[in-house]
Amino acid sequence: MRAVDVIERKVEGKELSSEEIAFLVNGYVEGSVPDYQMSAFMMAVVFNGMTGKEVADLTMTMMNSGDIVDLSDVPGFKVDKHSTGGVGDTTTLVIAPLVAACGGTVAKMSGRGLGHTGGTLDKLESIPGLKIEQDMDSFKDIVRRLGVAVIGQSGNLVPADKKMYALRDVTGTVRSIPLIAGSIMSKKLAAGTDGIVLDVKVGSGAFMRTLEEAEELSRTMVEIGKMLDRKVAAVITDMNQPLGLSVGNALEFREAIQVLCGEVDLSDPLVDVCLLLGSHMLVMSGKAENEADARMKLIGAIRDGSGLEKLRQMVEAEGGDPSYIDLEKIDLLCQVRRKVPVYPDRDGFICGMNAEGIGTAAQMIGAGREKKEDEIDHAVGLIMHKRLGDAVNMSEPICTFYINDETRLDDAVALLKKSVCISGERPEKTPMVYEVIS
Amino acid sequence: MRAVDVIERKVEGKELSSEEIAFLVNGYVEGSVPDYQMSAFMMAVVFNGMTGKEVADLTMTMMNSGDIVDLSDVPGFKVDKHSTGGVGDTTTLVIAPLVAACGGTVAKMSGRGLGHTGGTLDKLESIPGLKIEQDMDSFKDIVRRLGVAVIGQSGNLVPADKKMYALRDVTGTVRSIPLIAGSIMSKKLAAGTDGIVLDVKVGSGAFMRTLEEAEELSRTMVEIGKMLDRKVAAVITDMNQPLGLSVGNALEFREAIQVLCGEVDLSDPLVDVCLLLGSHMLVMSGKAENEADARMKLIGAIRDGSGLEKLRQMVEAEGGDPSYIDLEKIDLLCQVRRKVPVYPDRDGFICGMNAEGIGTAAQMIGAGREKKEDEIDHAVGLIMHKRLGDAVNMSEPICTFYINDETRLDDAVALLKKSVCISGERPEKTPMVYEVIS
Repeated sequence: MRAVDVIERKVEGKELSSEEIAFLVNGYVEGSVPDYQMSAFMMAVVFNGMTGKEVADLTMTMMNSGDIVDLSDVPGFKVDKHSTGGVGDTTTLVIAPLVAACGGTVAKMSGRGLGHTGGTLDKLESIPGLKIEQDMDSFKDIVRRLGVAVIGQSGNLVPADKKMYALRDVTGTVRSIPLIAGSIMSKKLAAGTDGIVLDVKVGSGAFMRTLEEAEELSRTMVEIGKMLDRKVAAVITDMNQPLGLSVGNALEFREAIQVLCGEVDLSDPLVDVCLLLGSHMLVMSGKAENEADARMKLIGAIRDGSGLEKLRQMVEAEGGDPSYIDLEKIDLLCQVRRKVPVYPDRDGFICGMNAEGIGTAAQMIGAGREKKEDEIDHAVGLIMHKRLGDAVNMSEPICTFYINDETRLDDAVALLKKSVCISGERPEKTPMVYEVIS
Repeated sequence: MRAVDVIERKVEGKELSSEEIAFLVNGYVEGSVPDYQMSAFMMAVVFNGMTGKEVADLTMTMMNSGDIVDLSDVPGFKVDKHSTGGVGDTTTLVIAPLVAACGGTVAKMSGRGLGHTGGTLDKLESIPGLKIEQDMDSFKDIVRRLGVAVIGQSGNLVPADKKMYALRDVTGTVRSIPLIAGSIMSKKLAAGTDGIVLDVKVGSGAFMRTLEEAEELSRTMVEIGKMLDRKVAAVITDMNQPLGLSVGNALEFREAIQVLCGEVDLSDPLVDVCLLLGSHMLVMSGKAENEADARMKLIGAIRDGSGLEKLRQMVEAEGGDPSYIDLEKIDLLCQVRRKVPVYPDRDGFICGMNAEGIGTAAQMIGAGREKKEDEIDHAVGLIMHKRLGDAVNMSEPICTFYINDETRLDDAVALLKKSVCISGERPEKTPMVYEVIS
C-alpha cells in the first residue's frame, strides 16, 4: 500500500477501507507516513468528508494508537461528560458531584484551558493543595469510594491525536467535522467509560458557528458511539454568551459552589444546561427512569446539599483543602488587587455578545493561556452582570474585571466592550438548548 | 503573514493576493514554509481552484524563483513549442527545422521522457555524437546562425517547480489545472521566448482525459500568457492512439525524417498535427499572413528539402553526425537483435487504443524509463501498422516490436494486445484536432 494512492482515493471521493485508514494513521504515528502526506490527506477530508464507517475506523485507529484506560474493575456504569469548549462553562464542577450524589458513577479525565476557553483542570487547581495528577489506581480508588473523580489525563492516551492535532493547527485543517469527531471521540473512548454525554456548543464563543454544523458533529459522534458499542448522547447548547456569569478559574469555581448551594435560580442558563447534561447522564446510567425523574433527583441533590458534599469529598480525596468548598470561604480565593467595573457607552439592550471576545478578554488579564507554557493567575477574571437581552444603562456596570496585573487591562476592557453589542430595541430571546441527539 | 492563514483563506474560497502567493511559494523554496503546509495548500487548490489572477501570480513567482533565460541578444521573434506529453509524438523534430526553414526562430529547451511518454532529448541522443547539453552562449549562437536549436535545459530554471512537482507527486495533488498550468508556464516563460505554441493532448495516452479538462488547461495557460505579456496559443489534439506510427527513440527520429522527406502522406495524423502547430508558430512569428499561407510554406519546406537540411545543420551544430539525417542511413540506428510481429486475436476493426498502454509496452522493452535513473536503449521500440478505425485480420501483424533484450517481451506484447480493442463494427472517425485557443 502507498500513502499517495490512499490520498488519491480520498480526493476522488471513494470510501477508504479500514486497512487504508489504519495504514495512514499508524504510519503517521510511527513516522513512515510523513507530515506532508498526512496534511494533504486531512485537507482532502476537509473537502470530501468521511462516511460514517470511515470516521468510526479513524476513531478506532486513533484510540488504539496508545494506552486505553481499563475501568472494568470499577463497579457500576461509568459515565463521562465532554464539552466542545466554551466560555464561563463550569458545568463539570456542578454536574460531576451532582450525578454522583444521585447514584451515578462519574469517571472523568479533563483538560486544561487554551485560548478563549477555560479548562476544568485549571479551575480545580484554584483549590489549595489539590493535585490533578493522580495515578490510575488512585483515580479508580476515588471513583470506587465516592462515585466521582475528575483528574488530569495520565498515561499515553491517543498519541495519534496529539500529533494530528498539532499538524491540523498549522495546515488549515482544523475545521473538519470528521476530524473533530475523531479527535474528541478517540480520547473519550480511550478514557474507558461506558457512556458519554457530549455538550456541543454552538455560537459566537464556540467552535461550531452554525446549528447545522453542530448537528452534523453531534450526529457523527453519536454514530461513532453506536458503531463502537458505547452509549453516547449529544446535546446542542447555546454559546452566544458566557454560560455562567463568571469567567476565570476561582471565580467559576465559586459560581459552581453557588449553584450547588441553591443560590442560583433554576432558570439560569448555567443551571439549565447542568440539569440537562446531568439528567442524560443519570438516565444513561440507569439511575433515573426518564429525564423528568432525573431532573427532580438532581434538584433534590442541590436542595439537600448532597451534591456540594460530594464535591467537598472529591476535593479532599484529590489532596485539596475541603474547607474552601464553602460559599464564604471560596471568596478568599477570589481576592485580587483591584476590581474594575466596566460601564456601557449607551443605554439600551444587549442584542449580541461575542463570547470568544469575552473569553479572550479574561485570558488577556491572566485568567487563561495564549500558549501552552503560559502561567495563569487563578484569582483573576471577570464577572458579567448582564445577560443577552438585558436592559443596560450607562450608570450601571455590565461587567467587573478582577485583576492583579494591569499591563493589558486597557486592551481587555476595549475588547470586552467591543464584544457586547447594545441596541435600542429589546432582542428576541434565543433558546439555551437546541436539541438532543442520541 | 502566517502560512496557515493563507491556507485557510484558500480553504474558504477567498482570492489570494500576489503577496500571499509569493509568501507561500518563496517561503517554500527557501525552506521557511515546510512541506506539510505546501501540500495542504496545494490540496486546497485541487478542490477550490485558482482565479486567473492567482494562477498568473503563482506562475510569475515560480518563474522568478531561479534563473531566467535572456534571449534579447538573439535577433527575431523567438518561438517555442510545448506538448503536454504523448506517445509517438515526434512533432518537435519535424516542426522545429520546418519553421526555421520558413524564416522562424525556434529556441527550445526540451525534456527527457518519463513513464509512457517519450522525450525529445532522448530521441536527439539517438544520433551518434550529439550533445544535448549546450551552454547558453553556444545555444544562442546556434539559434543565431541556423534559426533553430533544441537542447536540454541548462542552469537553475524554476527550482520552485522542481520542489513543488516532487511534492505533488507524493501527495495526490498532481491533477489540478492551476498547478499544472503554473508548472508548465513558469518553465516556458523562464526559457525566455517571445511566443509559445502549446499542444494540449487529450485522450487515453494523455494527462488530460476529457476535452473539458483540456480546454480549461488551455484557456488557463493562454490567459497566463496574456497577463504576463507573452504570445501564447494552445491547440488541443487527440491522444487516443500514438500520434506517429513509431514509438521509440531512433524509430521516432526516423519517422520525423520520413515526414521531412515527404514520404508520409499529408493526411497522416502526425503530419496533420505538425502542420497545425508549425503554422501557428509561423503566424505568431509574423512569418506568414495566416494559417493557410503558413501551411503552404511549411509544405514547401518539406517538398524542397529545406526542412530536412535545417535538421541536418542543427544536428551537426550540436555535435551529432549529420550523415544520419538521411532516409537510408537512419536505418542503421534502428538495427536490433530481433523484430517480433504481433498479430491480432481476431478479425475486425480497431475500435479503441489505450495509448498509455502502448507507450508503457515500449518502455518495458527498454525504449523509455520507469525511474529517472534508468538507462534506455535508443534502437528499440515498436511500430504500429494500424491506426484507430483500420480493418485488421489475424494473418496481418498490427505491430512489430524492435527488441534487443527479451526479458519483459511477453509482458509487453500482452500489454500491447490489451491496449488495442478490436470489434466487429467499423467505429466512427474521431478528429485529430479539436480546437485552437488563443
